[in-house]
Formats: sequence, C-alpha cells, structure tokens
Amino acid sequence: MTKIGIIGSKGRMGQALVDAIAEAGHHHAGGVDQGDDLAALVSASDVLVDFSSPAALADNLVCCAQNEKPIVIGTTGLEELHHKLIDEAAKTIPILQTGNTSLGVNMLAALVQQAASKLGDDWDIEIVEMHHRHKVDAPSGTAKLLGEAAAAGRGVDLSANIESGRDGITGARAKGAIGFAALRGGSVAGDHTVILASDEERLELTHRAENRMIFARGAVKAAGWLAGQSAGRYGMDGVLGL
Amino acid sequence: MTKIGIIGSKGRMGQALVDAIAEAGHHHAGGVDQGDDLAALVSASDVLVDFSSPAALADNLVCCAQNEKPIVIGTTGLEELHHKLIDEAAKTIPILQTGNTSLGVNMLAALVQQAASKLGDDWDIEIVEMHHRHKVDAPSGTAKLLGEAAAAGRGVDLSANIESGRDGITGARAKGAIGFAALRGGSVAGDHTVILASDEERLELTHRAENRMIFARGAVKAAGWLAGQSAGRYGMDGVLGL
Amino acid sequence: MTKIGIIGSKGRMGQALVDAIAEAGHHHAGGVDQGDDLAALVSASDVLVDFSSPAALADNLVCCAQNEKPIVIGTTGLEELHHKLIDEAAKTIPILQTGNTSLGVNMLAALVQQAASKLGDDWDIEIVEMHHRHKVDAPSGTAKLLGEAAAAGRGVDLSANIESGRDGITGARAKGAIGFAALRGGSVAGDHTVILASDEERLELTHRAENRMIFARGAVKAAGWLAGQSAGRYGMDGVLGL
Amino acid sequence: MTKIGIIGSKGRMGQALVDAIAEAGHHHAGGVDQGDDLAALVSASDVLVDFSSPAALADNLVCCAQNEKPIVIGTTGLEELHHKLIDEAAKTIPILQTGNTSLGVNMLAALVQQAASKLGDDWDIEIVEMHHRHKVDAPSGTAKLLGEAAAAGRGVDLSANIESGRDGITGARAKGAIGFAALRGGSVAGDHTVILASDEERLELTHRAENRMIFARGAVKAAGWLAGQSAGRYGMDGVLGL
Repeated sequence: MTKIGIIGSKGRMGQALVDAIAEAGHHHAGGVDQGDDLAALVSASDVLVDFSSPAALADNLVCCAQNEKPIVIGTTGLEELHHKLIDEAAKTIPILQTGNTSLGVNMLAALVQQAASKLGDDWDIEIVEMHHRHKVDAPSGTAKLLGEAAAAGRGVDLSANIESGRDGITGARAKGAIGFAALRGGSVAGDHTVILASDEERLELTHRAENRMIFARGAVKAAGWLAGQSAGRYGMDGVLGL
Repeated sequence: MTKIGIIGSKGRMGQALVDAIAEAGHHHAGGVDQGDDLAALVSASDVLVDFSSPAALADNLVCCAQNEKPIVIGTTGLEELHHKLIDEAAKTIPILQTGNTSLGVNMLAALVQQAASKLGDDWDIEIVEMHHRHKVDAPSGTAKLLGEAAAAGRGVDLSANIESGRDGITGARAKGAIGFAALRGGSVAGDHTVILASDEERLELTHRAENRMIFARGAVKAAGWLAGQSAGRYGMDGVLGL
Repeated sequence: MTKIGIIGSKGRMGQALVDAIAEAGHHHAGGVDQGDDLAALVSASDVLVDFSSPAALADNLVCCAQNEKPIVIGTTGLEELHHKLIDEAAKTIPILQTGNTSLGVNMLAALVQQAASKLGDDWDIEIVEMHHRHKVDAPSGTAKLLGEAAAAGRGVDLSANIESGRDGITGARAKGAIGFAALRGGSVAGDHTVILASDEERLELTHRAENRMIFARGAVKAAGWLAGQSAGRYGMDGVLGL
Repeated sequence: MTKIGIIGSKGRMGQALVDAIAEAGHHHAGGVDQGDDLAALVSASDVLVDFSSPAALADNLVCCAQNEKPIVIGTTGLEELHHKLIDEAAKTIPILQTGNTSLGVNMLAALVQQAASKLGDDWDIEIVEMHHRHKVDAPSGTAKLLGEAAAAGRGVDLSANIESGRDGITGARAKGAIGFAALRGGSVAGDHTVILASDEERLELTHRAENRMIFARGAVKAAGWLAGQSAGRYGMDGVLGL
C-alpha cells in the first residue's frame, strides 16, 4: 500500500483520483489546491499525483524535491520552460510526466510507433478522433501524442508532415503525410483511431474511453510504479513495461 | 431483358457497366463516346446510361427526347443549367439523375433523413468519409449528399450549418451544426459514416464500398426500373421504392 | 411538468430515473418497492414508470387501472401471460411497454426495419453486440429486438431464420438468414451493430450506449409523452413519432 | 529482380501472383500445376511460391531441396506431418511458411501479441471476423492466427482458453478467456478485429482486406526477401523485420 497525495484535488480529476486510489488498495494521503498547505501533504505522502496547473508546477517540484518524494505529473498545457524544470528536478527525484495517463492510450501509442516503423511509407497514416460537443480545440492532445508516435516510428518530424482540417480542393494526399480529422458531438469521452492504409488493405487501431476514470486509474497505477523507482524522468511506457 | 446503351463507354465506369448489364441478365446495346454515332445507339437501346460529361449532357438529352428513350444520368459536376435542361427534357421522357448510383448509399441517405427528422437537434450530426490517396477534394460528393439528407430531415439549410475541416481553436460545437471530416489513404473506394451523437448514446450509420462495381450495378438496376416509368424526373429513391 | 412515480425504485434503474426526472424538469412523485404503499404512490402520480419485476406486474396494472393512471413498463422477462394482462388493462388506461427504453435503440430498430424492407434478401443481415464481461446470456435482448425489426422489414419470421453462435464447420450462409454474434468484455454498457451486406457494399448501423442513464432518460421521455395519450397500448415508436 | 516461379498457378491465387510479381518489378519464371514439369520450373526460378495443396508439399520440398531453391509456402490445411517435412527441408534451404501472407495481418498479429503481453488479463480479449457468405467454417484461419498471437503474448495455451460461438445461457465470461465470433455476408474479403476491453476503456485493432491481391503481394514480397536468406525456417515476421 502506497500513500498517495493529490495536488489539484478540486479539479476535474480530483474525485476520480480518490476513487481510483481506493479501488487500487492504496492509501489516500489527502489533497491540496491553491492556497492549501502543500508541504504538509508532500511530507505525509509516499508519492504525489499532480493534476493542478502549469502555474503551480515550479512550487510543486521544489516541494517534492526538498522532501525527496516522487511525483506523477498529468497537468496539460506544459511549455518548454516547464519541461526544463522537470528535467532539473528529475536529477534528484523520480518524475513521471505524460500528456495522457490512460494505460490504453499509451499502449496504443506504442503499437502505432511499432506499426509505423515496420510498415513502409506506402502505408498512409490518418488519425481521427471524436470528443464531446464542448471541446474547443482540434486535434485533441491525445491525437497529437499518437501522431508523434507515428512520426517517431517513421523517423520523421511530425510538424513537417501534418495534413489537418481537409476542406475544399486539397489536392492529392502528400506522400508521407500524417492526416488528422476531428469529430465533435454528444458526450463522447474520447475515441481515437489511427489508420494505416495501403493498397487494398488497412489497419485501424482504436482506443475508446468510456469516461475519465481511466485517466485516474492510470495515474494511480503510475504512482504505485513510480514509488519504487530511482531519480530520473519517466513516461507511461515504464509503467507498461515497454 | 432490357437493351441498355452506355454513353461514356470508355470512361472509368464503362467496363463495370458492361459487366453489370451481363450480371443482371440485360442486353448490352453498345456504347459511345465523344465523336461516335449517338443517334444509332439511342435508337438501338431501350434505355440509356450516361456517365460521360456535363458538356455532353445537352446533346444526350436532345437525342433521347427525339427517340423517346429514358436515360439514367450518373454524370457528376452538373451545374444549375444542366438541371434545367434535365427538367425540361423530363417533360417528355423518363429521366433519373443522381449524384450516386449505389443502392446502399441511397438507402443510407434515406435512413439518415429519417433519423434526423425524428431525433431532436440535441443529437449532433457528424459525417466522416475515407477515400483513396488520389482524391483531390473534400468532403466527397457523397458526404455532401448525406449532409443534404440530414439537413432535409431537420428541415434546415445545409449550407448554413456546415462545420468542416476543424483545425486549431475552433470553439465549442455550434448547436445544430452538421460536421464534416475527410480521411485519405490507400486505395479505399469510399467509406462514409454519419454519426448522430446525444448524451451518452450514439448512432453510427455507415456505408462501405469495396469497389466501383456497386455504382455500375445500381445504375443498371436504375435503368431497368426507369424503362418502365412514364415521363418525369426521378431519383434513386424510386428504384428503392422509398 | 409531470408528476412521475417510480415502481421498483431500489433496482438498478432507480437512481438513474430520479436523475432523469430532474434533468427533464419533471416532478419526482416518489418511489415504491415490494411491500410499500403502491396505491398512495399511484394516486400521487400523473404517470408511473415500472422497472420492478414480472411478478409485480398484475398488481401494478390493477392499481393503475383503478386510479386511471398511465404506466410505462420497462420490466424485462415478460411472458405471454403478462402481455395479455397489459392488453386487457390498455382498454382503460394508456400503457407503453418496451424491451428497451433508449431512444437511440428504438430509432435504430426503425432504421433496420426500413432498410430490410427496401433492400432485397441479397443483402445479408448480421447482428453483432458487445456487452460487459458479467452478462450471462447471448444474444442480448436488444439484439433480438433488432433482429425482430429486421425480420418484420422482410416480412419473415425471425425464429425460422436465425443463425447464431457460428463455430466449426457451419456450411455456407443460408439465404435469408439473420445472423447473431456476441462479444463480451470489459465494462461495455452495450454496443449493437446491424450489418446489411451485399456484393461489394455494406451498410453498418450501430448504436453505442455509454451507460444506463440513456434507458432512464428514454423512460422519462416516454412517461411525459404517455401522460398525454388516451387509453391504449403503445411502444417507443410513438414517442419517436414514427 | 528475382525470378519467381509459381506452384499452383491455376488456383485462386495464380493470376494475382502473376500480377503482383509484375507490380513488384520481379520476373515471372512460370507456373506449374499437378502433372506439369515441376523440376524445370524450380530450375528456372530463383525462388518458388507454393499455393498448391498439402498433398503436393512433399514433392515440392524435395524438388526445391535438390535444386537448392528457397520456397514460400502459403498453402493452408497443413498437418503436423507437413510441418515436420518443412522442418527437415529447412535444414538445407530457406523456407518461409505462413497461414496468411498479408503484410497487414502479420503486422496486426505482432501488435496483438505485444498488447496482450503488456496489458494484464483484466483486459478481456475478443476476436471478431467477417467474411463473405460462401465461407463454410468459423472462426477463420486468420482469426485463429490472431488468437495464437494473443495467447503467445499472455504466455497461455489458446486451446485451453477459447470461448467461441456464444449462444443462449453462457454464464459470465471466464477470466482469461479469448473469445471468437464470426460474421458472414456479402462479398467481404476478410475483416478481423481484436478487442482488448478493460474497465471503461477498450483497444480495437482491426485489419480490413479489400480483396485477395494483398495475399499475392505479401507472398511476392516474402519471396524477394527469402531469396536473400540462408537455410532455415522463417515466418512473415522476418519479412516485416519484427
């Protein structure tokens, strides 16, 4: 049993994390939000899970480093600077940072990377995702994560190969392009499909999320795994044993 | 057995039409292309199938009207003027014009219209299609045909409700929008899915074409049906008995 | 605003119904289970929603008839005798009975019936469903409901045309067969796909349920609709305006 | 350019192989069937592709071994004895034997094995396939191949964990089961989906074949690759660089 503390406990992931900690048989060490006593929580925890905000990241890292406590960072919207802070702190404590804490999504990313590396670029890669009607941006962060996996598998730079938002006279598909398309509607928690299409055959690799509990569950699994690691920076591939 | 003549016999649909005529047990009365003897073919046929070009349409209609022969028009890229010519000719001969001769696609359009008319606009409508890597425009003509069916079901104007090519900061989905997304890759003959997504449930209505033989087969079925009709303008819904 | 009473309030649908009543802006008149005062609830309600058990049906119908109150019956496992009781009571009060209260599933059934009636029997019909790992029977009741819709569209008897549980040397598909296949796994609330497959083209008509809230929502919508009807027996097609 | 000879040239794969050899820029060394001069063909070829029959396998192997020519074996229905013959011949010549020569299917099998090995057995595995209406057995050989990949990933024996042909009162899904379901209809060349379903999330890994040309194309690619290998027994994973 691991004592897990939640940073950002009143956000959209807070209650799901509490439920996931109980479900996994770990101990919920408490939660803090802006203005609460972070140091006390860190001190009382074996490992922290952070779904707060980029603005809070620096303080969170300093506090964890001082207390020599591992931290799982699921906060989105991180910039270059945040990643440098993480790299620096990871010299003294174990840190797992990921754009998506779901086990299934990370497994899918690994499969996409493998398929893209083994199949030639006569297999066209397309990524289509569907999310609820309230989502304000496209493609989703997870779609980009999958695109990065595909590009890594091919040994190319994603940004130089994106075809997104096709509409009107587009011309034929560019050789080597990685296409993105976004569907919006209903209450869909998040469906992602990566298609690899060659002549007369296709692979379609899909992940479906029923609700956001899977992100909490993956974050808690990551926390349990990270508690046993030495200082360094990790991703979800470590949790999956990839 | 009906004698079917093909106008545009050397185009991409020519051989498929010949095969479909044989398969259906009809008689292939011959085929013409630009410069060939159209009048002789029309005279020798019970019904014509035209997959030539918009430029040839006027001559084709005149010749069929003079010979009092029905004509199935599967040519794409028709403009307002062409439709007026068809309306005029349809006063004297039976004419079936359609943007897609596949039975399955037209059945799908009918289902989409019915679903859109019965389900409220809290059911968000999205249309996603995949075609081969050589296709140069998006959305596909068939996707638009399905969008028109959805709009008709709702009693709204499609052009005023399109959300197409989402990319970047799009904002939340507009109430009542009909969304379009295009995937390109491999040799896909044409897959179309219309999604109706409400809170916690979704309908996904899909048509998959394995190859273009289905368009020939539908055109031939339409020709056999049209041969028995009186003067007037028809669509594929008549063939399906809708 | 309609006063809706719940019969079977502590069953798996109880809380979802309370939530759905509030969401729809109706008034929750209360709930009863075995041993509670049914007459008082019926008296205090404009319309009843019954998800109790077949064993309680006779008493529920008598009490509603005496109080001249409409009743929506979502109880499953009804036998011939229960249907006769419903027919009898429907002479004096409005009764809506259905094997599935989801709007989407009932819409799908209507689409399936239409497609099956318009497309010839060279379009092979297959029904595949996926449910969570705990489900103990196959095919699902909803799959059978969809199969009945397909058979009705074709004007045939479902029981005489079922191909279910293919395994081993099955021989070629029988002409006119309606096939069933069942997938089990995870926590899937219920996905159903009806496939109509002809030569080189396919329609795939799918419903996906994210959770059981949709059944409560549909039942409440049915209750609101039924409150305005005269005596008689109804199905969800009335609610959908089919 | 490699000289490729076809054993079983008048079977269902014969013409597709000739086309695929031309498409890949190799040289078609000729083809033989029962009663033809096998020795002459083997002598004139750099590598052989065999889609004949199990009964012909022994002679084909002897002839290739005598001429020290590699052979790709795509024949299905091989028994234990045939595999022993292959193992013996593979001591002196390169032999690639596979139940499915499609690159996409073999890539899918590798992905399934990886996913099954990394995700715990709380991810339920289901395999569903669809084939044309004429297929007489279920599940398909390719579905079994994918099931073997899943079982290998889990380190279990497939035959001890199959749940196939669910129908009626099945009881809850067995822990660790690998489920199979078969759909039949239309002219579908072969669609296979492997589902890994956990609580609230699912992976769906699909391969779609548009027609059998992909099997010829994969066999020819395998032949080109095998021509450069030393004696031994290989599978398609070598061709894919897995």
